[in-house]
Amino acid sequence: MSTQEFKQAPHKLLVIPGPIEVADDVLLANAHPAMSHVSPDFIPVFGDCIRMLREVLFAPNSQPVLTAGSGTLGWDHVAANVIQPGEDALVLNSGYFGDSFADCLETYGAKVDQIKAPIGSKPSLAEVEEALQKKKYKVLTFTHVDTSTGVLSDAKGLGEVVKRVSPETILVLDGVCSVGSEEIRMEEWGIDIVLTATQKGLGCPPGLMVLAASKKAIAAFEKRTVPPNSYFASWSRWLPVMKAYEAGTGAYFATPPTNLIYALHASLTTITKGSPSIEDRFKQHVAASDKVKDFITSLGLKQLAADGKKDGAHGMTAVRYPQGLKATDLLPKLVAKNIVVAAGLHKQVKDEYFRVGHMGVTVVNDKERGDLDYLLKSIKEALAEAGYKP
Amino acid sequence: MSTQEFKQAPHKLLVIPGPIEVADDVLLANAHPAMSHVSPDFIPVFGDCIRMLREVLFAPNSQPVLTAGSGTLGWDHVAANVIQPGEDALVLNSGYFGDSFADCLETYGAKVDQIKAPIGSKPSLAEVEEALQKKKYKVLTFTHVDTSTGVLSDAKGLGEVVKRVSPETILVLDGVCSVGSEEIRMEEWGIDIVLTATQKGLGCPPGLMVLAASKKAIAAFEKRTVPPNSYFASWSRWLPVMKAYEAGTGAYFATPPTNLIYALHASLTTITKGSPSIEDRFKQHVAASDKVKDFITSLGLKQLAADGKKDGAHGMTAVRYPQGLKATDLLPKLVAKNIVVAAGLHKQVKDEYFRVGHMGVTVVNDKERGDLDYLLKSIKEALAEAGYKP
Repeated sequence: MSTQEFKQAPHKLLVIPGPIEVADDVLLANAHPAMSHVSPDFIPVFGDCIRMLREVLFAPNSQPVLTAGSGTLGWDHVAANVIQPGEDALVLNSGYFGDSFADCLETYGAKVDQIKAPIGSKPSLAEVEEALQKKKYKVLTFTHVDTSTGVLSDAKGLGEVVKRVSPETILVLDGVCSVGSEEIRMEEWGIDIVLTATQKGLGCPPGLMVLAASKKAIAAFEKRTVPPNSYFASWSRWLPVMKAYEAGTGAYFATPPTNLIYALHASLTTITKGSPSIEDRFKQHVAASDKVKDFITSLGLKQLAADGKKDGAHGMTAVRYPQGLKATDLLPKLVAKNIVVAAGLHKQVKDEYFRVGHMGVTVVNDKERGDLDYLLKSIKEALAEAGYKP
Repeated sequence: MSTQEFKQAPHKLLVIPGPIEVADDVLLANAHPAMSHVSPDFIPVFGDCIRMLREVLFAPNSQPVLTAGSGTLGWDHVAANVIQPGEDALVLNSGYFGDSFADCLETYGAKVDQIKAPIGSKPSLAEVEEALQKKKYKVLTFTHVDTSTGVLSDAKGLGEVVKRVSPETILVLDGVCSVGSEEIRMEEWGIDIVLTATQKGLGCPPGLMVLAASKKAIAAFEKRTVPPNSYFASWSRWLPVMKAYEAGTGAYFATPPTNLIYALHASLTTITKGSPSIEDRFKQHVAASDKVKDFITSLGLKQLAADGKKDGAHGMTAVRYPQGLKATDLLPKLVAKNIVVAAGLHKQVKDEYFRVGHMGVTVVNDKERGDLDYLLKSIKEALAEAGYKP
């Protein structure tokens, strides 16, 4: 995109579960000179992002939607387009983000049931199957990685259950903390909607809502008997715009965040055409996750996930403080070492754990950057400084 | 914010009515290293943006709201928070954006009346007064500058009419194409909501919805008998977050576009603390607008606005093609001179005119940049090349 040299300013290492460290070329793309959103130079860049997103999700038949926003706005897209007021939704709750998705669905008139798992685990496939047999749900949502707990849901297993028990149900994967860092075979697994944002596994600054919808999800939208009950999130408005950008003509509903589209283009180009391959990228995230989780375990610390290596995400780890330590004992010591990790988020236990992100360049370019070793060494040192002995 | 040197890549001069040319320091801020949205380093930057926005709008008592999005999302904020389903709204229509704002209000259940002005003009204050006397409207909206026609509404006059005839009515100024380039004395004039985006007079890349609400607008929100009927645009969600960022603590509802907040901070710092003063900035936009409009007139061309210098915006000009010429005769010749202007947008006449933006650095830094002279000279040359003789 550019031959300009750019090296971002020195800064603290950001290893929270998003936003994550952003590569220099992506930041330079985010500093692209101002462009018209309907310029013939910009339109194919937007079109490429749509095409590359399908590759990341293994969903050649899906319809991506990209707008200014955040992952949260993706919930509005589901709630206002795919389900109608009075219809039933089932929300699988594995943490903070299940509660919020349920709130969002109810805001637009859906009737929501939830299966709430204890903190650190997720609803079992058997529970989901039982619920689907009892009631016909228009929509089933799950948080692929709940950023508040680090629990990874079984996307493939859920896809199988839905196909077998309730094939009309629209299966929605909230991939805010998983797209780009977890394998998602959208079409093979039978996922109907994947929604995410740019600041995690996609390796960009925040500011874009990213979504892909299967033909089944689009058909459900087209069968609506009442119009979408959002304006800014209306697929009636956005689908023609996405098709126009992909076709190379462009169209206008609301101004796209042009610079973020350039940034996403740079990042998606690396992910889909660079080295490692997408498959190897996922394997690297698994390996990095194992390394972090093994290290945490070797220090005698527990994770929020019941069985971290089995149920835990590969792009983040939620770590319980050892007995007697709290956030203020540990996190400032890491900041002093130029490392930013995240505090707890799940309201019931937020003071009992911290969260570490290991996604994107921190994982994929770890050999050059050395982020992971520095992170783990610093956690160990900070714990020792706080008086903890493994 | 940074001592790094950065010069954006060479590019075509972007003189459309937004996005506009962005200063190097703002683009560098948009390439800020990744930051946690709740970091103690980032929170005061967000807080400063809130405080500086009040200065730009002369509204020290207003409550700003900044989220990922675009100007369009600002309509959802009004429609989902300030008016309830079944309540009446009056939309003053001076072009494309009046139609769309009306659509948005109706999506959320408002009953909408419109006063539609002929293309190139705006509803008169007398018409507005008459309408307000006939019916009690919860909300009155107007497009300060309709980007499709270049018509400037009389914000101060409308404020006086509302105060006198219907003081309970919430007066909403759609300032997408006016904030930063037109004087807006929000409190003195009695404007209750100003909504805008970052890619025009505020001189940033697109991707942020920017809004300020008066105490009267907030009170109307607080008196709702039903909750906001949007999730992503809900003030119940956002107002506590804005207050927390301003107080220096931070809070989470949806991830803010951190890099765009840095960019906005850089731009608002220039606008509120740099040279020229805000007042002089507005005067410079008037002078630049007069220069463009006089030049257009001297070439024998007409504007879409009935009386361009009286009714026209100061940040853009909508110019009718001379008899016999069309977009394809003129715009590619300007592109060949590295100048990007915009085609027509108002659907009834979109092939009959083009639009030129003169906002932000193109106006304020014109002495160094020479954008305006180059633009006008190029328009004259392109017209001549197309066979037009004044």
